Formats: sequence, structure tokens, C-alpha cells
Amino acid sequence: MHWTVYLSGEIHTDWREQIQQGAEKHGLPVVFTSAVTNHEASDAAGDVLGEESDSFWRDHKSAKVNAMRIKTMIERCDIAVVRFGDKYRQWNAAFDAGMCAALGKPYITLHDESIIHPLKEVDAAAMAWAQTPEQVVEVLNYVISKK
Amino acid sequence: MHWTVYLSGEIHTDWREQIQQGAEKHGLPVVFTSAVTNHEASDAAGDVLGEESDSFWRDHKSAKVNAMRIKTMIERCDIAVVRFGDKYRQWNAAFDAGMCAALGKPYITLHDESIIHPLKEVDAAAMAWAQTPEQVVEVLNYVISKK
Amino acid sequence: MHWTVYLSGEIHTDWREQIQQGAEKHGLPVVFTSAVTNHEASDAAGDVLGEESDSFWRDHKSAKVNAMRIKTMIERCDIAVVRFGDKYRQWNAAFDAGMCAALGKPYITLHDESIIHPLKEVDAAAMAWAQTPEQVVEVLNYVISKK
Amino acid sequence: MHWTVYLSGEIHTDWREQIQQGAEKHGLPVVFTSAVTNHEASDAAGDVLGEESDSFWRDHKSAKVNAMRIKTMIERCDIAVVRFGDKYRQWNAAFDAGMCAALGKPYITLHDESIIHPLKEVDAAAMAWAQTPEQVVEVLNYVISKK
Amino acid sequence: MHWTVYLSGEIHTDWREQIQQGAEKHGLPVVFTSAVTNHEASDAAGDVLGEESDSFWRDHKSAKVNAMRIKTMIERCDIAVVRFGDKYRQWNAAFDAGMCAALGKPYITLHDESIIHPLKEVDAAAMAWAQTPEQVVEVLNYVISKK
Amino acid sequence: MHWTVYLSGEIHTDWREQIQQGAEKHGLPVVFTSAVTNHEASDAAGDVLGEESDSFWRDHKSAKVNAMRIKTMIERCDIAVVRFGDKYRQWNAAFDAGMCAALGKPYITLHDESIIHPLKEVDAAAMAWAQTPEQVVEVLNYVISKK
Amino acid sequence: MHWTVYLSGEIHTDWREQIQQGAEKHGLPVVFTSAVTNHEASDAAGDVLGEESDSFWRDHKSAKVNAMRIKTMIERCDIAVVRFGDKYRQWNAAFDAGMCAALGKPYITLHDESIIHPLKEVDAAAMAWAQTPEQVVEVLNYVISKK
Amino acid sequence: MHWTVYLSGEIHTDWREQIQQGAEKHGLPVVFTSAVTNHEASDAAGDVLGEESDSFWRDHKSAKVNAMRIKTMIERCDIAVVRFGDKYRQWNAAFDAGMCAALGKPYITLHDESIIHPLKEVDAAAMAWAQTPEQVVEVLNYVISKK
Repeated sequence: MHWTVYLSGEIHTDWREQIQQGAEKHGLPVVFTSAVTNHEASDAAGDVLGEESDSFWRDHKSAKVNAMRIKTMIERCDIAVVRFGDKYRQWNAAFDAGMCAALGKPYITLHDESIIHPLKEVDAAAMAWAQTPEQVVEVLNYVISKK
Repeated sequence: MHWTVYLSGEIHTDWREQIQQGAEKHGLPVVFTSAVTNHEASDAAGDVLGEESDSFWRDHKSAKVNAMRIKTMIERCDIAVVRFGDKYRQWNAAFDAGMCAALGKPYITLHDESIIHPLKEVDAAAMAWAQTPEQVVEVLNYVISKK
Repeated sequence: MHWTVYLSGEIHTDWREQIQQGAEKHGLPVVFTSAVTNHEASDAAGDVLGEESDSFWRDHKSAKVNAMRIKTMIERCDIAVVRFGDKYRQWNAAFDAGMCAALGKPYITLHDESIIHPLKEVDAAAMAWAQTPEQVVEVLNYVISKK
Repeated sequence: MHWTVYLSGEIHTDWREQIQQGAEKHGLPVVFTSAVTNHEASDAAGDVLGEESDSFWRDHKSAKVNAMRIKTMIERCDIAVVRFGDKYRQWNAAFDAGMCAALGKPYITLHDESIIHPLKEVDAAAMAWAQTPEQVVEVLNYVISKK
Repeated sequence: MHWTVYLSGEIHTDWREQIQQGAEKHGLPVVFTSAVTNHEASDAAGDVLGEESDSFWRDHKSAKVNAMRIKTMIERCDIAVVRFGDKYRQWNAAFDAGMCAALGKPYITLHDESIIHPLKEVDAAAMAWAQTPEQVVEVLNYVISKK
Repeated sequence: MHWTVYLSGEIHTDWREQIQQGAEKHGLPVVFTSAVTNHEASDAAGDVLGEESDSFWRDHKSAKVNAMRIKTMIERCDIAVVRFGDKYRQWNAAFDAGMCAALGKPYITLHDESIIHPLKEVDAAAMAWAQTPEQVVEVLNYVISKK
Repeated sequence: MHWTVYLSGEIHTDWREQIQQGAEKHGLPVVFTSAVTNHEASDAAGDVLGEESDSFWRDHKSAKVNAMRIKTMIERCDIAVVRFGDKYRQWNAAFDAGMCAALGKPYITLHDESIIHPLKEVDAAAMAWAQTPEQVVEVLNYVISKK
Repeated sequence: MHWTVYLSGEIHTDWREQIQQGAEKHGLPVVFTSAVTNHEASDAAGDVLGEESDSFWRDHKSAKVNAMRIKTMIERCDIAVVRFGDKYRQWNAAFDAGMCAALGKPYITLHDESIIHPLKEVDAAAMAWAQTPEQVVEVLNYVISKK
């Protein structure tokens, strides 16, 4: 049985790589998917469709192009990992978590102890809270390959 | 035809009251619903079920009790209004928006111009972006009662 | 048992009024719903949210405000009537019909014989094709109140 | 991850081929699907089931045979592209777009600037509006293969 | 709590009346719904939309007009009763039962012992098999009003 | 806003009455529903449909008649309370909880500390665990009527 | 793109083989599925689970074992063909058609002209009516492989 | 056509192995899935996420990690087998059965005659009741491979 795991959230540290390498070491039959994590490319995703003078509409077009990818990947995933870092608003990560919750997709949150309180609604609908990528790998290993 | 409108997000200003009063002035056939907006009561929602020494689990229990209310109200609403203020993380508001998007509930975002960029994914799935409660009232008035 | 009937399409003739009056004569327990049929008001539905210099975005904002109403009414209706007149593109009427088909909402098309061929896909998913509002009234009367 | 893209609408220009060739150049893992685009064959799709003297029923039978293909392909696609040309009514394209919207299938519209206004409802539910097949290819390339 | 019960099938005996009178005697809070049970009216349901020379299409139009009523009533019912008599093919009753099964609507079959074998697939998906209208009334009474 | 609360499980103590009386004291707008809690009546629910010599089939018929009531009530409820006592197997209560989980119905478990371990899967999908009917009443009061 | 086609109904003629051979000649990428068509085996499907003295329960057990296969195959199919012969009640075929209709599975009916009238409800929800297996093959060939 | 069969319940006898070996002998194209059946490992599934002093929360964390696996496997299965042994509460098996029932997944129960009465609700929603693993194998063989 193959699994698809969607990695959502923070793009400024290498947590995605750590999880993917950990999964590889365990030989897990997992395909990892993700939004485009290159910040500039992501912000410019809609520019090919024509320039916008108004920054709201530039953002709007790019966010919708990105949404085609994100929505498809969330709907196809078996499990999502949603990462909150210590910087920025990261409302898109919470938004992805809300989609997962409504679609019945089990998700794991990955964040420090310091932000437990503001994330309580997001954690309450999660299946697990991890503090390190290693923990996520261990959980995936258990869920996917434990006999 | 009666409408149900769920009001999600910021609890530190009186935007909910402004919208409700505006709707009343127009005589709109709307029932407004909302999470518990009393901060202390909300944080303590699960305390009746037993004390917790660990703050994660206290938050967890309270968030789940609140979720029974929020999830039911979102699933029953026709339209949601999701408000982002200028303070706090407000991940719960983005989480609610993600649920609305996945459930096909049309929602209106209500926030200042200064946070357009970090909210672009949330706005991209919204049916309208308003900057003032008055605008929300005007939109509701049009949607619900315009002949 | 009460019924809700959504009236979609052409706004330049009085077909809606004819159907509503016919239903009233028969004393049918029906609530009729409809998009805003005032053309100028409909085109300006989003203006309250701020002016747009680009006509694409003005249309976009207005169409989304209207969609909050239309989507809700289609999802709540038991039957839809979709009217195609002899002028304009009326892509929104065909779009509504596609939504009805996908949502399993039975719909009746109302149009002249002259446009049978270009409407064949829309008619193929319809439950009836009527040429006059009187026929629609007769069908509704049968479906709703015939013993 | 493989993707399926449904190409809906106009059959009188080679926009389908342009998109398919563009995707091939980029080596995208996409299967493109489409209704039968041979006009005569499409109109005659139901003739094998018996001749009809009444043109409404001939159209009806053929449209239903075509619908078996179209509905299956739309339900299986990840993304749709809906093309509106400058001729004919093209109500079937708008109908397909309405189905996509109701099913939660993200779609891209492809049309000239001259028909923005009559397509505003169709564009409002789309994830992107493109004016050329090249733009569609660029968007697909970004969505599907951008790291 | 009010209940809606759809009565499907045979139209040549007074089983519907017997069930309705029995429910009334028990004072059950039930609304009973049903297809049009007047055979001639039912066969002619589509005639108002124009005459057909071909009997297949006359039947087709009438069956679709009837389907608007039947489908809506089945989707709204809490329980269905599906009656098979000893005459005619009654494929429409089996068709209704199949719809109920797929929609998760619990249904009770009502038929004689003599046709157990050909009805085994229909009975296998039913929640009860009754041989008399009195038994149906007793079951409804228990399900709806037993403390 | 009215709420419907389904009370599932143990029938040998008066926990249902305690919750209903508590809700009444608070004036909560709740309708409580429940399976038939009279043990003998419940076991005999299918007897009216004919005697069975084989006890498996007697149970089967009765369980299905009861299921018509239970399934409808679970599907209509906003919240369920699932009670596990200290006697009997009570597999039907766990079965109801599994249905609630799959249908997205939030539920509260009500049981003693002594059976935490065997109920861990049922509790893991619950929104709250209460040990007394009073706690359930307090939670319902908060969820339903807290401003 | 591969297709799955479910063949439902009559088991006394070789219509299934004719369709499968026709599809093979055209090289169509189709997997055909079907209930067990050996009459005795089908009637005895539940016997391995224990003998029944009552014929109702023997039929019941066998029909449920068969339903595990039929339901799975219908839910997985893209298109169904439902065949009605000139003998027997064939209520299971009409039941399958009702399931297809409710699940949105397009189906083709295959029957003689002589039974148009009793099948009008089943035909009204079908996408095509064929009189010969050859016609079914032609329709499948067009739907699946026509460029 | 490949099938996926989820094996739920008792972990203290080798019924899973018997079914798998039986399926292998018949050469059935089946993938069997299962929760982690190592009792200690299952109870400790959440320990990697941090120690808990409170046994309720330790169980809670582990049960949720296990639920990610179980829920995914149930949603992906075509058929489930739910086994009840003669020891322990086994509420998780009944919970899985309830999920299957609500999701429309056909399931077979596997248990002794001695517990028919307490399992009547679980059996009533099952497609078959088997007393031995051999019977389950025979049923799977028939359902999956009988011509």
C-alpha cells in the first residue's frame, strides 16, 4: 500500500528535507507533495497571466494558481503534516489545516511548545502534535510500515 | 427565505455588534452565530470535565468543547464572515476559513489593507474582501434582500 | 410539503412573473428564488467593496457577490427553471444548469424551438423542455400538487 | 504524481493541440482528455441507436451518448481548461464549467478580452483566466512540475 | 420529531390508504408522500410539453416529469415503503428501492410470500419485510413513537 | 438555533433523565432523541413481522427495525452522548460511536475512569469525555447557550 | 484512460459475451465486471455460512453475499449496461439501475421494444437505450475511443 | 480487479493469518490491511511524541496515532472482516464496524454463536456472519473470483 503525505507550511527551514530523508532511510512507500516552496516563484505564480497594477489582484491571481496545486494535493493525500515556524503569520498553514479537518484528512502539526496556546484549535483537530521532524518520521514509520 | 451567517475571528473589537445592528436596521432575515467570544470562558471551556496539570491538554480539552459549537455552526451557516484584526496570531480564524472553503461555504473576509499579502490564500478562496463592517452589511443586504 | 424553485436566466422578459402568477393561481406551496434581475444593480454588486479601474476585476467582484446568492439558492432549491432567450450569450444560465446537473437538482429548460441544437447538452441533462411559462406552470402543478 | 486535464469547449481552432504540444515539450506527466471534437461525429453519436424523425430527439440521444464520455472525464480530471471562441453559442462549454464548479474541480478559462463581461460568472468561479494556449501551458507547468 | 415516509410501488390496491389511516389512528407525526398514483395521469404527465408521435418519447417525457417528483420525495424521506403486488412488472418499484439503497434511505418491503425469491436482492437491502399494511403500521409506530 | 442531541448506550441507569432534566433547568433549546430503551420491547421489535424459530434471525429482524430509528436519529443529531456502564458488552454503543465518527457528528463519551483503556479508540474520536451526567449538562449548556 | 463497465441483468442469453467480444475486436481498454451469472451458484452463495431451514433466510444470506460483489463493482464502474430479457421478473436489474441512478453512474439499458412501457422509469434515467449488444458495443467504442 | 480487505478486531488468535493463507491458496488478488496487532507497540504508539504522566492522555495520543492508520485503511478497503473473540471488551472492533456501516463499506463479522445477542446491532448491518476463518475465505473467494 502506497501513501501520499502532503507537507504544508513554513518554507524557511529544511524540515521538509529532514522528513523526506528520514522516510527514505526507513524505506517507506511514501510520495511527498508540497506547494511551491520558492517564495518569489510562489508570489509570481500568476504573473504569466498578465501584469497587475494593484497588489491585491496580483496576490489574488498568484494565490489561485497556487491553490490549483494545493487543493489537488490535499484532496489526494492520506496524511498531511502542517508546520508552524516562529516567524510570519502563516495563515495559509492554518487554512490548509482547516481544509484537512473538513475533508477528513488526518494531519500532524509540527511546532514548538511556545505556540501551543494560539494553535489550540488547529491542534485539537490534529491526530498528533510533533515538535521535531524526527518525531514526524517516527510516527509515519509506525503508521505506514509497522507490522 | 432565512439565512444563517457565522461570524468568525477577532474578539477584541465590536465588529460583530456593528454587523448585527446593521442587519437589523435593514430588517434582514438573518440569524447570526458565533463561537463563544468571552476569552476567559473560551479558554476554560473544558475545565468542567476535570483539571489538567499540563497546559497542552487543558487547551486541548477546551478547544474540543469549543469545536463542537464552531463546527456545528459552520456546517449550518449559509455565509461566513471571517475577521482578522491587527493583533495576535488568529490561526483559528484562518482554520475556520479553510473549513468553509472545503465545505463549499461562501465566506467574506474582513481585514485591513495592511495584511493583504499574508492573507492572500485566505482571500483567494473568499467570495469578497471587505475592509469595514458597513461593507459587510451592504453585501449581506444585497445578497439576501435585493429584488 | 413545501417546494423551492430557482428561476435562472434571461432577465429581459417577464417569464418569472408569469410563472409566479400561474403558481399562485394554482395555490402551489412554492417559494421562488432568483438572482438579482436588475441588470445595473447586478453589475454593480461589488462596487461597495471599493472601486476598480480594471473592468475585469470590477466584473469579478460583482460576479462573486452575486455567486453567494446564486449558489445558496441553487443548493437549497428542489427544482430549477433555466430560461434562454433569443438575445445575448447567457453563459450564466448554462453555467447554472451545469451546477444543477452536477448537484443532482432536477431542472426544466425554457426556450424556443430555434435554439434546440446549441442547447442540446443542456437539454440532455434536463428533466423537461418547455417552450412557454404556462407549460412550466402546468409541470410544476403536476409535480407538486397532483394527487 | 500524474495529472489529468480535461479540455472543454471550442472545436474550430487548434488550441487543444497547442496545449498538448506545450505540455509535451515540458515533459509534464499529464493525460489530456476531451469530448469528441469531430462536429459531425458528435452530432451523430446516437444514430447507431436508431433513426429519429424529430430533430429534438436526435440531438437528445446524441447529447446523452456524448455526456457519458464528458461526465466521466470531468469527474476524473484534476484540472479543466474551458475555451470560449468568438463564434457560436458554446453553451456546452459554460455547462461544463458549471459542472466543474459544483464538483470542486479547479478550471482555467481561455478566452479573449472582448468577452470578459458575458463570461463574468464563469470566470468568477475559475482559478485562472488565460488569453492564450501558451499561458495555459505555463500555468500547468508551474502547478504540476515546479519544485 | 417529524418523519416523512415515501410510499412506492403498486397502484392497484388501497395499501397506501390503509397505512395512512393506521398511522393516523396512532397519531404518528408522519407526512406520507407518493408518486402520482393515477395511472392515466401519470402516463400523460409530459403531454402538456407537446405531443409525441413515437411512444418511446412520450413515455420518456412523462417518466422524467414524474421523476422530478419521485426523486425529490425519496431524497427528502426518512423511510420508504416499497410495495410489490402480484401483477405487472413493477420495475419502477425495484428502481426506487435501488435508489433508496444507494442513498442510505431505510426501506420496508411489502409483498406476499410467493415472490420472496425474485425479490431477494431488493429484500436483502431492506430493513424489514412486511406482508400486510398492518405490519408496516406497527413497525412505523414502534420506530417513530415508542418510548 | 435549536439543537438535537442523541443519547446512545446504557439503558440500566437514569443518566438520560438526568441530562434531560439538567438541560430543562438551563432552558436549553434541545430535542433529545434515543433508541427504544425498554429492553424487552427492543428485543421484540421485529416480532410483529412474523415469528422466528432461530434466535439469530429473531435478533436480526429486531435489530434492523431498531436501526431504522437509530440511524435516522444519528443522522439528524447535532451532538451525540455515548454512555458506557460497567456491565454488559455494550457493543451497540461503540457501534453508534463509530457511525458518529464516520459521519462527522461530534460526540461526548460518558463513562468511569475504570474503563479508559478499553475505550481509548472510542474516546480518541470523541470531542469530550465526561464522567457524570452533570458534566454533560454543563458542556451542552456552554456549547448551546453561552454568549 | 481505462474504463470499467458493469454488466447487469439477464443471465439466460450470451449478451455479455457478445459485448465483451465486440469490445475486444475494437481493442477497447475496458474491464468488464458482473455479478456471478451461474444461477445455482448465486442462489447458494450464502450456504457456506450455514444451512437455513427457512427459504427467506437462505435467499437473504445469499443475496447479501452477492451484494458485496455487486455493490463494489457498481461503485467502481464508469458505465453500466442493464439488460432486461423477456422472461422472469428481473427486479434485481431494475434495482441495480436505481443504484446507478442515485450514484450518478451513467447506464445503458438493453431491451426489446416490447417492454418500453413498463421500463419507462428505468429508461428515463438511462443515458441510452439499445436493442442489441452490437449497438452497445458501438456506443462504448464511440464513448471510449473516438478521437 | 484487485481488492483490499481490512481485518479488524481480536489480536490474540491467528485468524488473520488463516484468512491470508486461505486467500493465497485460492490465488485471490487481495491486499489485506490491518491495524498494528502488536499490543505493546499499539499502546505505545504515541510515546515518541513525548511522555505523559496521565494514563488517559497516553492512551489518547496512542489511539490517535493508530487512528491515522485505521481510518485510512478502512476508507480504502472494499470489504472489512470484523472479528470478536471471547475475551476483552473489544469496543474498538465494534467502533470499526460502525465506521464501516456509515461509510457504506460491506463487512463480514466473525464470531461464535455464544455472542449473537450482544452483537445483534453489529450483525444487522453486516453483509455476512461467519463462525470460522475458513468461511470467510470461502465468501471472499466467491465474491472476488467466482465466474
